Amino acid sequence: MAPGKKGILERLSAGEVVIGDGGFVFALEKRGYVKAGPWTPEAAAEYPEAVRQLHREFLRAGANVMQTFTFYASDDKLENRGNKLTFTGAQINEAACDLARQVANESDAMVAGGVCQTPSYLSCKSETDVKAIFKKQLDVFVKKNVDFLIAEYFEHVEEAVWAVEVLKETGKPVAACLCIGPEGDMHGVSPGECAVRLVKAGAQIVGVNCHFDPMTCVKAVKMMKEGVEKAGLKAHYMVQPLAYHTPDCNCQGFIDLPEFPFGLEPRILTRWDMHKYAREAYNVGIRYIGGCCGFEPYHIRAVAEELAAERGIMPAGSEKHGMWGAGLEMHTKPWVRARARRDYWENLKPASGRPLCPSLATPDSWGVTKGHADLMQQKEATSKDQLKQLFDRSKSH
Amino acid sequence: MAPGKKGILERLSAGEVVIGDGGFVFALEKRGYVKAGPWTPEAAAEYPEAVRQLHREFLRAGANVMQTFTFYASDDKLENRGNKLTFTGAQINEAACDLARQVANESDAMVAGGVCQTPSYLSCKSETDVKAIFKKQLDVFVKKNVDFLIAEYFEHVEEAVWAVEVLKETGKPVAACLCIGPEGDMHGVSPGECAVRLVKAGAQIVGVNCHFDPMTCVKAVKMMKEGVEKAGLKAHYMVQPLAYHTPDCNCQGFIDLPEFPFGLEPRILTRWDMHKYAREAYNVGIRYIGGCCGFEPYHIRAVAEELAAERGIMPAGSEKHGMWGAGLEMHTKPWVRARARRDYWENLKPASGRPLCPSLATPDSWGVTKGHADLMQQKEATSKDQLKQLFDRSKSH
Amino acid sequence: MAPGKKGILERLSAGEVVIGDGGFVFALEKRGYVKAGPWTPEAAAEYPEAVRQLHREFLRAGANVMQTFTFYASDDKLENRGNKLTFTGAQINEAACDLARQVANESDAMVAGGVCQTPSYLSCKSETDVKAIFKKQLDVFVKKNVDFLIAEYFEHVEEAVWAVEVLKETGKPVAACLCIGPEGDMHGVSPGECAVRLVKAGAQIVGVNCHFDPMTCVKAVKMMKEGVEKAGLKAHYMVQPLAYHTPDCNCQGFIDLPEFPFGLEPRILTRWDMHKYAREAYNVGIRYIGGCCGFEPYHIRAVAEELAAERGIMPAGSEKHGMWGAGLEMHTKPWVRARARRDYWENLKPASGRPLCPSLATPDSWGVTKGHADLMQQKEATSKDQLKQLFDRSKSH
Amino acid sequence: MAPGKKGILERLSAGEVVIGDGGFVFALEKRGYVKAGPWTPEAAAEYPEAVRQLHREFLRAGANVMQTFTFYASDDKLENRGNKLTFTGAQINEAACDLARQVANESDAMVAGGVCQTPSYLSCKSETDVKAIFKKQLDVFVKKNVDFLIAEYFEHVEEAVWAVEVLKETGKPVAACLCIGPEGDMHGVSPGECAVRLVKAGAQIVGVNCHFDPMTCVKAVKMMKEGVEKAGLKAHYMVQPLAYHTPDCNCQGFIDLPEFPFGLEPRILTRWDMHKYAREAYNVGIRYIGGCCGFEPYHIRAVAEELAAERGIMPAGSEKHGMWGAGLEMHTKPWVRARARRDYWENLKPASGRPLCPSLATPDSWGVTKGHADLMQQKEATSKDQLKQLFDRSKSH
Repeated sequence: MAPGKKGILERLSAGEVVIGDGGFVFALEKRGYVKAGPWTPEAAAEYPEAVRQLHREFLRAGANVMQTFTFYASDDKLENRGNKLTFTGAQINEAACDLARQVANESDAMVAGGVCQTPSYLSCKSETDVKAIFKKQLDVFVKKNVDFLIAEYFEHVEEAVWAVEVLKETGKPVAACLCIGPEGDMHGVSPGECAVRLVKAGAQIVGVNCHFDPMTCVKAVKMMKEGVEKAGLKAHYMVQPLAYHTPDCNCQGFIDLPEFPFGLEPRILTRWDMHKYAREAYNVGIRYIGGCCGFEPYHIRAVAEELAAERGIMPAGSEKHGMWGAGLEMHTKPWVRARARRDYWENLKPASGRPLCPSLATPDSWGVTKGHADLMQQKEATSKDQLKQLFDRSKSH
Repeated sequence: MAPGKKGILERLSAGEVVIGDGGFVFALEKRGYVKAGPWTPEAAAEYPEAVRQLHREFLRAGANVMQTFTFYASDDKLENRGNKLTFTGAQINEAACDLARQVANESDAMVAGGVCQTPSYLSCKSETDVKAIFKKQLDVFVKKNVDFLIAEYFEHVEEAVWAVEVLKETGKPVAACLCIGPEGDMHGVSPGECAVRLVKAGAQIVGVNCHFDPMTCVKAVKMMKEGVEKAGLKAHYMVQPLAYHTPDCNCQGFIDLPEFPFGLEPRILTRWDMHKYAREAYNVGIRYIGGCCGFEPYHIRAVAEELAAERGIMPAGSEKHGMWGAGLEMHTKPWVRARARRDYWENLKPASGRPLCPSLATPDSWGVTKGHADLMQQKEATSKDQLKQLFDRSKSH
Repeated sequence: MAPGKKGILERLSAGEVVIGDGGFVFALEKRGYVKAGPWTPEAAAEYPEAVRQLHREFLRAGANVMQTFTFYASDDKLENRGNKLTFTGAQINEAACDLARQVANESDAMVAGGVCQTPSYLSCKSETDVKAIFKKQLDVFVKKNVDFLIAEYFEHVEEAVWAVEVLKETGKPVAACLCIGPEGDMHGVSPGECAVRLVKAGAQIVGVNCHFDPMTCVKAVKMMKEGVEKAGLKAHYMVQPLAYHTPDCNCQGFIDLPEFPFGLEPRILTRWDMHKYAREAYNVGIRYIGGCCGFEPYHIRAVAEELAAERGIMPAGSEKHGMWGAGLEMHTKPWVRARARRDYWENLKPASGRPLCPSLATPDSWGVTKGHADLMQQKEATSKDQLKQLFDRSKSH
Repeated sequence: MAPGKKGILERLSAGEVVIGDGGFVFALEKRGYVKAGPWTPEAAAEYPEAVRQLHREFLRAGANVMQTFTFYASDDKLENRGNKLTFTGAQINEAACDLARQVANESDAMVAGGVCQTPSYLSCKSETDVKAIFKKQLDVFVKKNVDFLIAEYFEHVEEAVWAVEVLKETGKPVAACLCIGPEGDMHGVSPGECAVRLVKAGAQIVGVNCHFDPMTCVKAVKMMKEGVEKAGLKAHYMVQPLAYHTPDCNCQGFIDLPEFPFGLEPRILTRWDMHKYAREAYNVGIRYIGGCCGFEPYHIRAVAEELAAERGIMPAGSEKHGMWGAGLEMHTKPWVRARARRDYWENLKPASGRPLCPSLATPDSWGVTKGHADLMQQKEATSKDQLKQLFDRSKSH
C-alpha cells in the first residue's frame, strides 16, 4: 500500500463506510470478454485495457476497493477450460493484480486479492489439496503486495474456513464472504454459525456475496452479525449482493432460477433500488458495502450517493449525474421535467413491458428440469457420485 | 476510407448485411461519462479512453460501422448546458471522429458521422438557421473524412429533410433515420410518406432509430419500404431501435413512459430477444441493422450471431460466447447444463422478480402528470409558446 | 305486456336508460345447472326454481329486462346434445318464457325473447332452412306474448339479418346484437356496415353482446352508431359485454383465449370496473346497457348504481350495498374503514395473487394449439370441410 | 337427525370424506342479499328463497353438511347494525336452522349450527358475558335439533375455547375452527398449541376456516394435526379456506389486503385450483373439506369431483359438468376442443387480463394506510383503547 494510505481495518475501525466494486464476470461478459459457463478471468491477461477500463469506472463511481479480477482463477478451475487458454494461472493472477494496483493508485483505493470456492473441494479433494490450490493464488497476491485478502463465493463454510486459514498466514487483513442466504450454507449451517466459524478461523471481516438480491443478502449478514455478537466475538461486516431481484430463489440462489444466466434482464435493479439497499445495509451496521453479479458502475455510484453524507464525499462520477433525477430539469417536455424529484423515483413501480411473462419463477432443481435426465445418463455419472460423496461427508459433520 | 475498404453503398448494393453499433449515450451514462437529461457527448474529449473502449466492444461484437459519438453535439444544444463544458463543439466533434476512425481501422469497419435534431428547429428558428447548425458539425466530418453520414433521431420529417439537404452537399453517402413508430412523425406524416420525402431529398438509406422497441421499429421501416416502393423510388433500409420492450408507448415513444430514463431496467431485451429482432429485420428486407439506447455490446453480438450464416462470419466477440447457451454445458449442476439448448432460451418467459410492479405502464403526457402544472407556471411559459408555434406551423403544412 | 307498462321503444325514445340483465349460461354453470361446452338452457324446464332465482336477483339488481333463458335453445342446437335431454325444444322455450314473465311481473320489467346463431348456418344450410329454425322459437315467443325480441350472439351479420327478417314478422320491437369487436364480423364487415344492414333489415335497436370486455364492446357499438348516422339512418343502441378483461383477444373474442372457459377467473371485472363501463356506455349514447357472460347480479347493480341519477332510481338490491364501499365504515379495523371512499376503489389496481402467471395471453387459433392436429385427424374431417365451405362462401360476398 | 342418517363423528371415524359447503356471506353479497361491512345474515328471515337456493346448490355440488346461515348472528353483533333489522336474533337463527334442515332432508346431508367470534370478546367483556352470547344462539340450535355444532372464525384461541366449552354442554359433536394461518392466532399461539387447547376443551374436530387461501389453510391444519399428535391426543380435522389466492397476506389474512372486500376478483381460484386443494387436504389427513368466502357451488363440486373415487360417488351437479373440460369435446372450433383434457387445465397459468396491475399487494396495517389517521382521531378513540386492552390482556397469558 502506498505510504499514508489507510488500510481496510483502520477505515472500518474508524467507522468509515467502505464502498466495494461491482461484479466483473457479468459486466465483462456483456462487454464481450468473459465466457458465461466457465466464467474464468483470462481477460486480465488477454484484454487488459477492457479490464482496466472497468476498474476505472468503479473507481469513478466511488469504490474504495479494487478487487483483483481473479474469480475462478485457481489452477484447478482454469484447467477445466481445457487447452483454450494461452496464459497460465500465474500470468492471469499477476496481470489482474497489476491492473487493480494501477487503477487504485489513481486515487486512494485499496487492492484486495480474491480467492473463491474450488472444483477441488466440490470433487471432494482433501483439505491439504484444497489449501494448496489457495496457496498458489496467494503467492501471487503476496508477491504483488495486495492490501488485503478476500475469500468469497463459498457455498460451504468448511471450505471457506480452510481458505481463511491459508490467507491468514500472510499476515494481511482477511475478509470472508459466503454466497448464502438466510437459510445458511449448503450443509444447513446457519448464517450466524457460519460467521462464528469464519471469525474463529481468523477473518476480521465477514459477510455474504452473490447468489441473492440486496435485501436478502443484508438480512443474511444481519443474522451473521447477531451470531457473532451472541458468541461474544467481534468482526466487521460486508455485503456484495446481486443486482437482480430474486424473491423467488430457493436456498441455492439465482443459479437455480430459470433465467440464469441469460434471461436475468427484467430482474436488474434500478439505481433507486440501490439507494434503498445502501441505506438498509448501513442501518443494520454493515460498513463494507459493494456489489457482485449484475452491478454496473452506476449501481455502485448510487450506493455512494446514498451514503454521501455519511462518507463526507460524492463520487467523482456524480459529475455526470443529478441526484434523484435532477438532470431532467432541463428536458424539453414538462412531464419529463416533472420526474426530476426524489419521491417520483422512490415510488415508481417500474413496468416490465413484458405482459406475457410472469413476475416470479419457480426455481429449477434436481429432478425437475425436463431433458436433464438424459444428459445425466450420458455424462454425469461421475459427478453424481461426487455430489453424493459430498452430501455424505456433509452429514458426518 | 482506407484504400480497398468497401463503402456502405457498395456493401448494401451487394446485398451484404451491415451491422450497426449500439447507443452510446445510454451505455456511457451507466459507465459514468454521460449525464442523463442533457445527454451531450463531451466525454469524447474529456474521457477518450472510455469512449474508445466502447467503440472497441461494439467492433468486437460485430459492428461494421463506428458511428461518431456526436449525438446532441450541435453548438446550439451544447450551449444549453451552460458554462459547464470545457471543450468547444468543434473539439468534441473532432475528438469523436478521431476515436471512431482509430477503432474502425483496427478492422474493416466504416466511420459514420452523425447529426440529429436541434433545439433550433424545436424553437422555431428558420430553415437557414437550422441548416447552419448542421453545417458546422458537417465541416468537422468533412475535415476528418468520415466514410458516410447519418442524420438520425428526428421527430419531424421536415427537419430531417433539411438535414439531408445539407449532408448531401458533401457528396458522401447519406442515411436518414426518424425516431418514429408506425403512427408517423409528430406532425402525423406517415412512415411511408416520410421515407419518400427523405429519399427525394437525397438520402440513399432510410429508416428509424430510437424511441421504440425492435419489433415496432421494424414495422415502421417496413411501412417506409412499402411507401418508397409504391412511389416507384429506390432506397436501402436501416433500423437502430431501443433495447427496451415498449409495447405500451404512445406515438412519442419511450420518453413518455413513466420509467424513462431511470427505471427502464425491467424492459431490457435479452440476447434471445435480439435474435428474433435480427431475423425479423432481415426478413422484411432491412440490411443495415444496429441498435440505439439500451444496446450493450452483447446485444449487437446477438444480432451478428443470428445473421452469421448470411454474413458468412462470426463476430470476434463470439470467442467468449457459446451459441444458444452452449457455454453452460460445463456447469456443475445438471439442471443448469440442461439450459444449454436453443429451444430453452427461445421459449423462456423471463420473470421480472417484481411482483409488486405491473407489466405495462400508462404513458405520461401533457396534462397528466401530477405536479407538472406548478413547474409549468414557474418556468415554462416560453417553451409552451414555442410548442404552440411549432404546432401551428405543423398545421400549415 | 301488462297494461300501463311502457314498452322498450317508448322508454328508449323518451331517453330513458334501460338496464339489461346478465349472462345466464355462465352464472348457472357456476351454480351447477348448465353444462359448459353445449351451453344449452334445458334448466329452464328441469330446474325452474334455480332459473327463477337468478331472474329475481337481476331484477333486484336493477334490470329492466328479463331476457328469456333460451340461448342455444333452437332445435338444431338442442339436437346436438343427443339423447340426453328429457324436454323438447318447445317445452324449454315455453318454460323460459313463463319464468321470465313471472319475475318481470314482480316489478315493471319487460320480457325479451331471445334467439341466437344456429348450427344450421355454420354448417351452410340455406337461408330458408336457417329461417325456419328461428321461426320455431319465435312461435313460442308469440304464444307467450313476450314484450320484444332480441337476436343476439351472431358472428356473421348475414345470419343476423336473416334472424331480424324473421323476427320482424311478429310486429314486435326487434333488437339485434352481434358478438363482434371493432374489427367487425367474421367476414370482415365493419361494425358500422353491420349496423346499417341490421337497421335496414328492420332492427330498431342494434349493438353487440358477449365475446369482448365492456370497453371494447362500447367501442364497437360507437362505431355502429357512427355508421348508422353516416348512412342517414336512425336506431337505438345496446351493449351487453363480457364481465372479463380481454385486452389480448383477437377478432374472435374470448373463445380463443387459452383461459376460455374454465380459467377466466382472474379476468373477472370488479364492481368498480362496472361503474366505468356504465359511464362510458352512457357517454357514447348507448341507452340499453346490460351484461353477458360473467355478469353476476352485483355487476348489474353497479351499472344501476352508477346511473342512479340519470335513471332517478336506486336498485332494490342497493338496500344491501353501501355506495363506494360505505358499508366498511363500521369495520373494526381502522385501515379497513379507510377504504370506505370512492377514490380508494376507483384507483385500486387489484393484484392477482398469482405471481407465476402472466398478465396477458396469446390467443389460440388454427394451427397453434399443440395436440389439436391429432384430434383433427381423428374426428374433424367433416367440420373442417364445413369451415372451408363457410369461408369460401364468405369470400363470394 | 333423521333416523338412519349417519352422524358426523360416525362418518369421520369410518374414514369417510365429508364435504363442507361454501361461504354464504360472500356468495349472497354478490347475489344482493348480504351487506358487505356488517356481513350479517338477516337474509335467512328476509329472503328465505335466496338462502334456500344457495343451500340447494351446495348440496347438489356434493356438500354433506348444510351449515346454518348464522354467521355474525349473535345478538351483540346484530345490535351493531342499529335499528335497520326487522327481525330479532332468535328469528334469524331459527329461520336459518329451518332452511338448512329443509334442504338437508332433500338428501342425506347433516345440519351444522354455527357460532363465531363476538364483538363482546373483542371489546373485552368477561368470559361470563361472552359465553352468555354463545348460549343464546345455542338455545336455538338445540330447539331446532341441529346435528352438530361448529365454532368457527375465531382469531383468538381463548374465545374459541370458551365457545367450545359452551357448545359441549349440549352433548352434540363439536367442531372448532380458527381463522388463522401458520403463524398462529392473534396472540401468537401456534396452530399446534391452539389445536391442543381446543381438543382439551372438548372439540372432536379442529381446523381452520377463512382468512387464507387453501394451501395456506391446509398447512396450518397440518401444523394443528402435528401438535395434537405430539400431545398424545386425538381429533378429526377440517378445513374451510378462502377461494382467493392470498400468498401476500400477513398474519391477519385477507382482511388486510388492499383488495378486501371489493377488489378480490383477480384472486378467485379456478376449479382446477380446487382439485389441487382437495388432493392436498386429503393427503395431509384432513377428512372434512369445505370452503369459506369466495367459494361458489362449482368450487365445492370440484372438490367433490377430485375426491369422487375416495368417496365412491360423484356429486349430483356433475350431471352438468364434464370432468377436466370434457364438455368442450363438442365445441365447433378444434383449438377449443383441444382443451378438453386434464393436462391442459392442470398446467394453464391463467392470465389476469390486467397488465396495469401488479401480481402481489402489500397488506395494509395500522399506521400504513393514508387517510386513516384522520378517521382515527374523529371516531376511533374508544376502539383504540379497547384494542390496547386486548393486547395487554393477551400479554398476560
